[in-house]
Amino acid sequence: MAEASRTSEARRDAVFGRWVILSPARSRRPTDLKSHAAANPSPGAGNCAPKPSCPFCLGRESECAPEIFRVPAPPDASPWQIRVIENLYPALRRDADPPAPEEQAAQVLPGERAVLGFGFHDVVIETPRHDVRLWDLDADGVADVLLAYARRVLQLMEHPAVKYVQVFKNHGASAGASMAHSHSQMLGTPFVPPSVITRLNCMKEVFESLGKCSLCEFQSNDILVSETQNFSAVVPFAASYPFEIWIIPRRHHPFFHEIDKDMALDLGSLLRTMLQKLSKQLNEPPFNFMIHSSPFEVSSSCLPYVHWFLQIVPQLSVTGGFEIGSGCYINPVFPEDAAKILRELDSS
Amino acid sequence: MAEASRTSEARRDAVFGRWVILSPARSRRPTDLKSHAAANPSPGAGNCAPKPSCPFCLGRESECAPEIFRVPAPPDASPWQIRVIENLYPALRRDADPPAPEEQAAQVLPGERAVLGFGFHDVVIETPRHDVRLWDLDADGVADVLLAYARRVLQLMEHPAVKYVQVFKNHGASAGASMAHSHSQMLGTPFVPPSVITRLNCMKEVFESLGKCSLCEFQSNDILVSETQNFSAVVPFAASYPFEIWIIPRRHHPFFHEIDKDMALDLGSLLRTMLQKLSKQLNEPPFNFMIHSSPFEVSSSCLPYVHWFLQIVPQLSVTGGFEIGSGCYINPVFPEDAAKILRELDSS
Ligand SMILES: Nc1ncnc2c1ncn2[C@@H]1O[C@H](COP(=O)(O)OP(=O)(O)O[C@H]2O[C@H](CO)[C@@H](O)[C@H](O)[C@H]2O)[C@@H](O)[C@H]1O
Ligand SMILES: Nc1ncnc2c1ncn2[C@@H]1O[C@H](COP(=O)(O)OP(=O)(O)O[C@H]2O[C@H](CO)[C@@H](O)[C@H](O)[C@H]2O)[C@@H](O)[C@H]1O
Repeated sequence: MAEASRTSEARRDAVFGRWVILSPARSRRPTDLKSHAAANPSPGAGNCAPKPSCPFCLGRESECAPEIFRVPAPPDASPWQIRVIENLYPALRRDADPPAPEEQAAQVLPGERAVLGFGFHDVVIETPRHDVRLWDLDADGVADVLLAYARRVLQLMEHPAVKYVQVFKNHGASAGASMAHSHSQMLGTPFVPPSVITRLNCMKEVFESLGKCSLCEFQSNDILVSETQNFSAVVPFAASYPFEIWIIPRRHHPFFHEIDKDMALDLGSLLRTMLQKLSKQLNEPPFNFMIHSSPFEVSSSCLPYVHWFLQIVPQLSVTGGFEIGSGCYINPVFPEDAAKILRELDSS
Repeated sequence: MAEASRTSEARRDAVFGRWVILSPARSRRPTDLKSHAAANPSPGAGNCAPKPSCPFCLGRESECAPEIFRVPAPPDASPWQIRVIENLYPALRRDADPPAPEEQAAQVLPGERAVLGFGFHDVVIETPRHDVRLWDLDADGVADVLLAYARRVLQLMEHPAVKYVQVFKNHGASAGASMAHSHSQMLGTPFVPPSVITRLNCMKEVFESLGKCSLCEFQSNDILVSETQNFSAVVPFAASYPFEIWIIPRRHHPFFHEIDKDMALDLGSLLRTMLQKLSKQLNEPPFNFMIHSSPFEVSSSCLPYVHWFLQIVPQLSVTGGFEIGSGCYINPVFPEDAAKILRELDSS
């Protein structure tokens, strides 16, 4: 169905329970204010000349906060391929006192609550080179980044006060990035974050009333972009953002960090293809990706309905008061149309 | 307590159940990418020269979508003071078929859902003049804008398929505004939006376990910015954004649209003062404000715990993957510090 022939539709998804308004007409509205995206070119090819002052570059390791571990590069290559380091300006502090067990228990009670800012905030430097973007790596290189995430999540899981680890990547100033050198981050929090609770509650409701996991089946092939042995890449049925992509393990699994080498290679290859497609279709847009996994202490009764996935969100417009107030997004591109474009696009 | 002496803290609020990470250290991180705010000056004094092409200006009414009603100006002034018009590029369409009652009933069931894009999307032009910002009006002028919102909400409420009306304002490109001329918007939706459901559930939990409305009392005077006979302006205990302000009716009330003339004048005056303070303190930042009211069909058992309020959010930074993924924000400014600064600031 062509873009022009579609009229507005409201859709709700089965994972977050979020409504979205799909409205192609919105993309035609004029503006007399400077465009956000145009004013904030994302870094990338051409923009990414090696920068002598970048602390994430090879040879400047001493300007970074302490290293947690490194993934060595093949012999004769650079001294390292990936570094996982502490964030020098952490939102949460590993040296703060973790909440006491009573405090942790009190967190499930409703009402206002405050705890000391204990937690872990780490940075994953995905490559020693300033001019290389994640999708310039080969599939093995992307897989190694994913395995570094998983390894670090497993370490953080050992800490009894860490309830969740949010893995995420910001690329481009309009997606929030302050550093251009290819990197991602993770935050281990002493609480289960709000969206994770919403997601678990919504998937639970679906499971209890329909008897199925929200992500084990999807309704139509129209939203499929690509499939590998272990993963499907789709534009979700109720995508909040234009050209949003979800990469979903085909077999039910609650935890990202239990990914093995083969799965990581498969995912690395698909993630790379999706980022290449977005870059090609949308002229290297600013974007975020987020891994949605399960809290560590999830009860075994939840395991049948929690299913991890990776969400990629190109940042093509600015969120306004409607979205902030209502939690409902306005997306001018129908998921089926975005999926068709991405499916037919040659990424190479 | 001075900013420098504070360390990180995590807080959860009693209205949305959202965790926020308060982290003064974050504001010191460097950037090698162009700053978002600097690249997107908001319109306003100096920036707001009358624009011959602006359809919201006096004399260009014919370039707008149809008018719904106007608030006349005093005799001898311009032909109108405020216009409520249809949005020319509506996200939802008033001419679409509203969902049938069965469809409306099915919406409460979990799982994926799609409905035709029926709804109302209106624009409130707050002044005929291009160079006047909302807080340049006198308190009566702001009150009239608030009364125009309420009047339109009351009209939309008459439609049985409209479940909620989100009133909001975008000011400045980084807050999503596409038009510089002072205006706000409202969207009447055929569903109760996700954040409204989250808010009602959270306030219900607080009420059931603590026996009180989350907004009828607040814990400390440290977060108070200003108070009038009917309203308190506070920086909320777990503010997600730096210098976020909530204006809360002091007496329990679920519905914004039941505001009377006296209340509107009182609110208009306080809102004006708060916008002036933000403008002065933060150099006319881009901002959004949102009115959080109750769904029309809320059951009477909910009335004791739903309490409407107006949220003002200056947009000083870009949201990144952590916030999108987790729903938890990182705020570098402690609410008590922001409240103290705003309290002591002379707005005149
Ligand atoms: N020498 C050094 N050693 C170690 N670490 C260093 C360092 N120099 C800088 N850093 C850290 O590197 C990180 C780079 O992260 P990003 O570019 O992805 O975005 P940032 O976290 O700044 O903020 C974006 O993401 C967050 C989280 O989503 C949002 O809160 C925010 O608004 C958005 O701009 C920063 O967190 C910074 O503290
Ligand atoms: N001649 C005319 N007659 C009538 N109406 C006219 C008109 N010309 C333009 N309009 C309408 O005027 C409105 C102006 O609204 P804003 O500047 O507050 O932001 P906008 O809605 O564009 O998008 C921001 O807010 C929305 C909702 O929060 C976000 O989805 C989006 O990303 C963000 O940029 C637009 O909606 C536009 O359609």
